Amino acid sequence: MINKIIFIGAGNLATHLGEAFLNAGKEILQVYSRTEKSASELAVKLNCSYTTDLEKLLSGADLYIISVADSAIEKIAEMLPFDNVLVAHTSGSTDIKVLKRKNLRPAVFYPLQTFSKNVEVNFYEVPLFLEASDNKDLERLKILAGLISSKVYSIDSQQRVMLHIAAVFACNFTNHMLYIAEYLLKQNNMDFEILKPLISETISKAGHIGPFKAQTGPAARNDKYIIELHSEILSNYENYQKFYNFITNSIISKYCYKKEEDK
Amino acid sequence: MINKIIFIGAGNLATHLGEAFLNAGKEILQVYSRTEKSASELAVKLNCSYTTDLEKLLSGADLYIISVADSAIEKIAEMLPFDNVLVAHTSGSTDIKVLKRKNLRPAVFYPLQTFSKNVEVNFYEVPLFLEASDNKDLERLKILAGLISSKVYSIDSQQRVMLHIAAVFACNFTNHMLYIAEYLLKQNNMDFEILKPLISETISKAGHIGPFKAQTGPAARNDKYIIELHSEILSNYENYQKFYNFITNSIISKYCYKKEEDK
Repeated sequence: MINKIIFIGAGNLATHLGEAFLNAGKEILQVYSRTEKSASELAVKLNCSYTTDLEKLLSGADLYIISVADSAIEKIAEMLPFDNVLVAHTSGSTDIKVLKRKNLRPAVFYPLQTFSKNVEVNFYEVPLFLEASDNKDLERLKILAGLISSKVYSIDSQQRVMLHIAAVFACNFTNHMLYIAEYLLKQNNMDFEILKPLISETISKAGHIGPFKAQTGPAARNDKYIIELHSEILSNYENYQKFYNFITNSIISKYCYKKEEDK
Repeated sequence: MINKIIFIGAGNLATHLGEAFLNAGKEILQVYSRTEKSASELAVKLNCSYTTDLEKLLSGADLYIISVADSAIEKIAEMLPFDNVLVAHTSGSTDIKVLKRKNLRPAVFYPLQTFSKNVEVNFYEVPLFLEASDNKDLERLKILAGLISSKVYSIDSQQRVMLHIAAVFACNFTNHMLYIAEYLLKQNNMDFEILKPLISETISKAGHIGPFKAQTGPAARNDKYIIELHSEILSNYENYQKFYNFITNSIISKYCYKKEEDK
């Protein structure tokens, strides 16, 4: 049973995850961060002690969660002053094997969500993707995960990095499309608000009938008349003409190719 | 008061719009389409007569709605066998002036939504964008529009084409991102379903704090380590490496530039 948890890293994810564990009745023993400000702020939120020195990490936690920049995970794991403890990183794109040194029991605890400071997240709806080298550890993590989320999955490192890439398309890139849409409206004295019903319906339809069938618009029907008009107008807006043409061509090729397949 | 309506064109939009007018107690007099099948099918749904010959359009309608391919609107308008009737097209990207010939009273009735066959739409949430050359006609259209939608706006042709372009980004391009995400998951034995909570949160957050502040992910923090990893993995997946790099670079440049501006 996992009861006592230590966080290594004090970013958005550690904050949201720590609060979820606390609400589920778990004890956060300690928070580590390189910077005292981050460490102390999170320690107050999680009602625990903090340190800025890895050497001073407390022993006796059932789980050490490494939630730092991906490129720093391996180094942090190397520096942990313990053997035979359960250590999970929270990264989508980092292989579990970076934790496989000495006698650590490596694991992954990856919540698939977009976390921003001061934006509350209903953790119960956040899918959690688990991996562990040891089956008993995996079971322990599943029980812990089930306390804070209704969606717990077990996938391997190769699937996880692809899930992360898919999430970049579905979340980060999608958000960038919305950013450009908002920018273009603003430049013409219109408010992002007027797009919201369309955006809701877009997401809802893709969810119900799948994104392929849900595709509409000038590119999907290869409407050269409109595409050329839009492209010409966008020549006055930063690099958005190139942007529009690039994605339009991707849709045209994908859509026509797929249509052929369907026949 | 607009009571009797004729539809020229029998596509998805005419179908959804016609049904909404019918439910609001309006009378559809007639449907025109080049093909008998489309015309007769819609006529059954809208409980009216149909024709495939523009010369046989009935006179006496309060509003003629031209809902055909953008490139055909002007030609259709030229062929209308009437003077001094209220004629509205439903296109986002077509200037009202293509209707300004003879003594037609030109107007635009543009519903901003993604319509697919057999997917029901709650018209009351669909924003309608109106334009008319004559102020009285605009008032008449506002009253009609208000019967079927809670969101009625008046914008000019220049704004409308930009709105359409913004909608292409927010709807069509966003849907394409979801398509690619689904494809990448499928290739690795995962289901699109697992992305849905992330997608919901992405849209919700962009709506609440705006897309600029809502941007997260490797590109937004210029995380070269992850970006290179993702890009390398995607070299095995069609042209998605190029795609990933293109949008990633757009986010990086936009995000850093904006950050500088904010200072």
